[in-house]
Amino acid sequence: MANAEDVTVTPVKGGVASPEGFLTSAVHCGVKAVASALDLAVLAPDVSASAAALFTTNLAQAAPVIVSREHIEHSGGVARAIVVNSGCANACTGPEGLTHAKAMAAETAAAIGCAPHDVLVASTGVIGVALPIDRVVAGIRAAVPTLARGHGSDAARAIMTTDLFPKECAATVTTPRGTFTVGGMAKGAGMIEPNMATMLGFLTTDAEVSPALLRRALETSAHDTFNAITVDAECSTNDSLFAVASGASSVAIDEASYPALLEGFLAVSRELALGIVRGGEGATKLIAVTVSDAQSLHAARQVARTIANSPLVKTAIHGADPNWGRIVSAAGRSGATFDLATTSVRIGGVLLFDHGAAHDERAPLAAEHLQGSTVQIDVSLGSGEGVAATIWTCDLSAEYVRINGEYRT
Amino acid sequence: MANAEDVTVTPVKGGVASPEGFLTSAVHCGVKAVASALDLAVLAPDVSASAAALFTTNLAQAAPVIVSREHIEHSGGVARAIVVNSGCANACTGPEGLTHAKAMAAETAAAIGCAPHDVLVASTGVIGVALPIDRVVAGIRAAVPTLARGHGSDAARAIMTTDLFPKECAATVTTPRGTFTVGGMAKGAGMIEPNMATMLGFLTTDAEVSPALLRRALETSAHDTFNAITVDAECSTNDSLFAVASGASSVAIDEASYPALLEGFLAVSRELALGIVRGGEGATKLIAVTVSDAQSLHAARQVARTIANSPLVKTAIHGADPNWGRIVSAAGRSGATFDLATTSVRIGGVLLFDHGAAHDERAPLAAEHLQGSTVQIDVSLGSGEGVAATIWTCDLSAEYVRINGEYRT
Repeated sequence: MANAEDVTVTPVKGGVASPEGFLTSAVHCGVKAVASALDLAVLAPDVSASAAALFTTNLAQAAPVIVSREHIEHSGGVARAIVVNSGCANACTGPEGLTHAKAMAAETAAAIGCAPHDVLVASTGVIGVALPIDRVVAGIRAAVPTLARGHGSDAARAIMTTDLFPKECAATVTTPRGTFTVGGMAKGAGMIEPNMATMLGFLTTDAEVSPALLRRALETSAHDTFNAITVDAECSTNDSLFAVASGASSVAIDEASYPALLEGFLAVSRELALGIVRGGEGATKLIAVTVSDAQSLHAARQVARTIANSPLVKTAIHGADPNWGRIVSAAGRSGATFDLATTSVRIGGVLLFDHGAAHDERAPLAAEHLQGSTVQIDVSLGSGEGVAATIWTCDLSAEYVRINGEYRT
Repeated sequence: MANAEDVTVTPVKGGVASPEGFLTSAVHCGVKAVASALDLAVLAPDVSASAAALFTTNLAQAAPVIVSREHIEHSGGVARAIVVNSGCANACTGPEGLTHAKAMAAETAAAIGCAPHDVLVASTGVIGVALPIDRVVAGIRAAVPTLARGHGSDAARAIMTTDLFPKECAATVTTPRGTFTVGGMAKGAGMIEPNMATMLGFLTTDAEVSPALLRRALETSAHDTFNAITVDAECSTNDSLFAVASGASSVAIDEASYPALLEGFLAVSRELALGIVRGGEGATKLIAVTVSDAQSLHAARQVARTIANSPLVKTAIHGADPNWGRIVSAAGRSGATFDLATTSVRIGGVLLFDHGAAHDERAPLAAEHLQGSTVQIDVSLGSGEGVAATIWTCDLSAEYVRINGEYRT
């Protein structure tokens, strides 16, 4: 991946602790019932670092979302640590929940030696259950002294709930000014249609970035990655995406070198976001829905999102049925305006519908494509504008129903 | 059921042919593969009758929708017959599909002896497949000569696709001017979130009603019945709701007696709409989501609809898990504005969340309610306005996935 300014992005093995200047720690503190399952992670730059964050647009905001937003506004975009627990979302927990989220920040700050508002907080798990704060505090006291360099794989595991596998990745970005690294981890399996960020995502970089540029890169990269995925159309109470820049590489990001930071963020965010979809509850297939030739970007995303959230499309693909009629019907109810007479639908590149006519003789070819684990749906709306957007989703299986019917039992 | 104007609505056994002045016929013409499965119905008043219709808001409108809308506009609200086939939706079928829908009307008109634009057409089934028009024409020629009085049960069966059972009902409406009857039938199992009407619904009455009043009663009653249900958030290409008034009872409906007609339409439409939800694909429970104390009717419906379409709420209820956190989360992402601090959630009347606090000690009581086949969810948003709305839905089961993964295979 290279662009005109001689920026090269190279994927490397690693995660949030791959960039220079980051320490991680993960412990089992007992929020999760399973003995020894990691359920608390601390991510800390060596020194105070630039930070940016995006939060859920759900009106029912979890306590850690409220506290982290306050803290990052208070600090003006600086953070010394992020503390995360899994197993309990600390959402819909009233004033007690806020006290608990503040206690998580205060305990972490006391152990590290910084102000509480320099600590950001995140939680993920069941909604409406009180956080077992004594266990979490004990966990924080155990975790902070063991903060260490490394790849952060334990941290990526400690933030999982029903996730099938940890989501982490890293990339180096080579620019004329030098090389820096971007790392990240994320969790998400159900309740996934982020509207500002994914359920929980963490990006790190050792580039030297101001809080303002860091926030711009985070917002811009999230738009086409974390905000372009859906598992079940459920924007959660806890969605949070954080970015922290340690500056340890001494590669400075200014307006001229900003595209390099953005490329790095896009590469890592796309990998993490697609990992969330591949690991969606009950998912067996990753589905890319690309809508092109729309009248506007808004229309393209609206059509792509409606198709990506259609239970009839998702079940058809689960059953490897190239049922393009359901795709057209979902597009038609999306609210976007287009001309059906110039609309075409392809599955795996196989043209199944265009100019109002079916090409069902090609259905077996498309069905073959649907046997694979990655599915490409292309819908052209036939306007001359040529605007396109892609939304990623997964299929809907009986396993999703099983997982979510039995979640708390 | 009685109101201040001495109107009494009494449910009676029956269907579309229960009101005086209606004939029905149903045959197997071969659109459905299963031998002898009824797949074509004709519903005809004795003479030309007042008619009204509501159609899908899906941009991809099926050929019968386009033709029926043209015909009813042309006739100014008069119809002599409605012809319906199941097994093929005649949607996304291009110019050929329009020719076929027009042929259905023309054949029926020729057999009955009326103008083609006095015949309305409806189709339901798979999208994107050409209608086997020769079989349908043969079916029409066989059906019209056997038009007869009766309850119309065969017609209700002939319009089924994946429906578990036929949906038909009737009621007598007693008024100071005399008694008239309202009857109806409907089909719907998947692709159900009507935005103007249900997939296919037919109301009949022997009251004497002008097309304008008939349309008003149809629109008003649909708002709180057919337009207040959802199975899977999928507004289809074919949704159509028809009403025909024969006038055979000689009970005249004017502005003064209009409330009686509306009561009759509401009673029959509610029964049919709830039947569609109970018979939703894979459904095991009927769920009523009532949102009260909202700031506006729009907000109440928006919150109720988001909860009713939430896969996480629907799977939790399938698993008899009183997971109120998912209900709050769905309300929060609905886009409506409300104060979480004054919001409360009840399942089966059991208060599980209010004023930011959980009452999980009562969860076993709510879980007991969820073992039943009818589930009541009440969400109060705590504003002083007291506006309420109810949306009906069903649970989401593995069976829904199986049905829709295997539909065409």
